[in-house]
Amino acid sequence: MKEIIAGLNKNFENRVRLGIMSALMVNDVLDFNALKELLGVTDGNLASHLKALEKHELILVSKRFIGRKPNTTYEATEYGRLAFKKHLTALEQLLGNT
Amino acid sequence: MKEIIAGLNKNFENRVRLGIMSALMVNDVLDFNALKELLGVTDGNLASHLKALEKHELILVSKRFIGRKPNTTYEATEYGRLAFKKHLTALEQLLGNT
Repeated sequence: MKEIIAGLNKNFENRVRLGIMSALMVNDVLDFNALKELLGVTDGNLASHLKALEKHELILVSKRFIGRKPNTTYEATEYGRLAFKKHLTALEQLLGNT
Repeated sequence: MKEIIAGLNKNFENRVRLGIMSALMVNDVLDFNALKELLGVTDGNLASHLKALEKHELILVSKRFIGRKPNTTYEATEYGRLAFKKHLTALEQLLGNT
């Protein structure tokens, strides 16, 4: 079981981060409001977890304007996709053991 | 996806806690050293997560002596088992979506 625990990525432990990554595996690009709507979390909570994932280069953040309104979009990096898949594999192994 | 995120239990997010609960679903009773060996974590790390799970009544702690040596055993409470199963179901739903 040691190896399974070690295979779980601390960056994805939090349930909001699990939700963000899961959403960005299925959708190539999502903006802040779409993620907020999907996950049902507050602005502050979502923003802090997005920042943490960006800091670890697991997601890519793009800022642009639509007309005069700022629009920020998020996508998983290649590294983030691989890391998340590894995390899911470890989770599946843990679930399979239980 | 909102409902899945809400179904994930914050008490089980941490990977050491996932490991403890998973081990206590399969084994009725485990002592500290057995858990430590299984999970490959330090005494302090394991102790703090066991304390948190006990505080939330998810596990039951029993202290006794074997000869003159203190021996502490851990088992999942009925409530803990149900809560962990609910958490696993939410995780499976999330994995199934990804």
